[in-house]
Amino acid sequence: MSEAAAVQAQRLQDFVQALFVHAGLSAQAANDVARALIWADLRGIDTHGVSRVAFYLNFMQKGVIKVQPQRRVLHETPAVQVFDADASAGAVAMFHAAEQAALKARALGLGLVMVRGTTHTGALGCYTQALARQGMVGIALAASIPLMAYHGAKAAGVSTAPLSIAVPGAADEPLILDMASGAMSMGQLRAAKQSGTPLPAGLALSEQGEPTTDPQQASIVLPMAGPKGSGLALMFELLCSLVVGNPIIADFLSDKPGGRKHRQNAWLLAIDISRFGDVAHYQQELARTVAALAGLPASVPGEPVRMPGDRGLQCQAERLRDGIPLPAALCKELAACARPEGLALPW
Amino acid sequence: MSEAAAVQAQRLQDFVQALFVHAGLSAQAANDVARALIWADLRGIDTHGVSRVAFYLNFMQKGVIKVQPQRRVLHETPAVQVFDADASAGAVAMFHAAEQAALKARALGLGLVMVRGTTHTGALGCYTQALARQGMVGIALAASIPLMAYHGAKAAGVSTAPLSIAVPGAADEPLILDMASGAMSMGQLRAAKQSGTPLPAGLALSEQGEPTTDPQQASIVLPMAGPKGSGLALMFELLCSLVVGNPIIADFLSDKPGGRKHRQNAWLLAIDISRFGDVAHYQQELARTVAALAGLPASVPGEPVRMPGDRGLQCQAERLRDGIPLPAALCKELAACARPEGLALPW
Repeated sequence: MSEAAAVQAQRLQDFVQALFVHAGLSAQAANDVARALIWADLRGIDTHGVSRVAFYLNFMQKGVIKVQPQRRVLHETPAVQVFDADASAGAVAMFHAAEQAALKARALGLGLVMVRGTTHTGALGCYTQALARQGMVGIALAASIPLMAYHGAKAAGVSTAPLSIAVPGAADEPLILDMASGAMSMGQLRAAKQSGTPLPAGLALSEQGEPTTDPQQASIVLPMAGPKGSGLALMFELLCSLVVGNPIIADFLSDKPGGRKHRQNAWLLAIDISRFGDVAHYQQELARTVAALAGLPASVPGEPVRMPGDRGLQCQAERLRDGIPLPAALCKELAACARPEGLALPW
Repeated sequence: MSEAAAVQAQRLQDFVQALFVHAGLSAQAANDVARALIWADLRGIDTHGVSRVAFYLNFMQKGVIKVQPQRRVLHETPAVQVFDADASAGAVAMFHAAEQAALKARALGLGLVMVRGTTHTGALGCYTQALARQGMVGIALAASIPLMAYHGAKAAGVSTAPLSIAVPGAADEPLILDMASGAMSMGQLRAAKQSGTPLPAGLALSEQGEPTTDPQQASIVLPMAGPKGSGLALMFELLCSLVVGNPIIADFLSDKPGGRKHRQNAWLLAIDISRFGDVAHYQQELARTVAALAGLPASVPGEPVRMPGDRGLQCQAERLRDGIPLPAALCKELAACARPEGLALPW
């Protein structure tokens, strides 16, 4: 797709925030959502960036994402909070969860927040990073509707369950693992469909559940590492959804009324490193570990041995400098979102 | 390898326990270790069963595993305990960690125990199962010396980091995911070497770091799903080892004196489901989720769609009935361990 614009990150964020305010979100909530989307765009996770704006606005219009949700604490102990997000925008619920988890971790060394009934959480690294910037370990999981084959089955049974782990890194830049349990992401599948590039074997099934390398036939993503990927995804459902009494997979697959409605449950854990040692020392030891790995002989001569998040950081530096590239179709889509509100376009 | 004996599980456990008592462990500690090994053998995880006895006894003789360790609590909050295991036998430290995590979770809904400086933890599912049997979620990780290639490198940089998640299952049988982050296990590699079976591509490197399918050439296991598998393994080191100030990877790879010494750090988290809902209801919802997945059309007609741990449970039923099969070489090895102590063999 041709690139129609490269927009300075803050300008794009302000624009997107204004769109969400027009849709009915509070300024703070709109800021949360815009910030999470721009974070993903900066890191090169374009599938979780402003390409989601139209989808979110549509969900807000339909009430799938509530613009004025009533958040409610269901259970609370000094170490755990479970809250019902009442179909908040995902980023609003997750930034709140990160705040609550950090408060608990600051007091007890450990805090877990379980988020019930939220919506598309977006790139989880955004929230674990917020914890890592406070000297904490952040671990986030989410459970969602089935899009990925369950190992041994010819049909979607589990979500491409995302997992992020972030820790305070060297030079105060958190080290962030941000992954999903699929052999490929839905975004990669869409990209292959657009470009027509054949898929490597073992990544996807057709709608009928047959293995395929034809991107146009491919419909269901396979789990990474077979039973490990789908096993992890199942466990995330059992941790995130069943502990808070909001099953997704069982309701979806049994065609229960409302069972296919968009919803997510999530899990955010914080560990305050300073309770168990010195954070500066932790960062030095991390730098030593990273240096040892980066110093190993490379598989491809001349290619660096990369740490989780390295490509994202490089992309962020480039996009902060050059702006966030927006394909023509996305510019058109965002312009259409802005037109009814009479908002000026940021490009 | 020919099978020389099939030994009733309790007889084998008693025999192994007696060997460890002779090596200097207390009766309780010897029971912990024997129980963990037999657990693995029953589930078909033969690489973590009594095939480890000679290796453990050798480590005890050399003091790598201390038979009279001085366990010491380093940090404690109502939600977290960090203890130094003082090179305990892994199972002793891990069963203790499970007890402590459960106590904390019973009080606050959540408990984390970080184990510093333990030895070979064995199959982690044994400890997460102990938590799941109490109506809890159990999550265990371990960090160990590098055996697996770091993605993008031609050399071992991380361990085949194990992860187990267990939850209370239907019919009071916990559902246990017990996996490692390698594309294959070291045990599978050893088995391929013994049988001479060529490896599928993408599983292993030679000692020189070149991709190979020749089991005799294969030396370094590749991570599952490339950067995801080695990224997870790195994060386990950053969580388990660096938070408690006991780095393994950095010391190992930098050839620091003592850096290659066998040691592990581990992490055990418990969540008390009853604090957030009804455990019986949880088990019903889990059964509904499992039934929905098991009811999906199978990839291979006639083959069941399996849940994590299904094969292990089936193996356990068979081995409880028929005894644990011991190859001739293993019988010989165990007999050699028993001879100096004058212990009667259980077969």
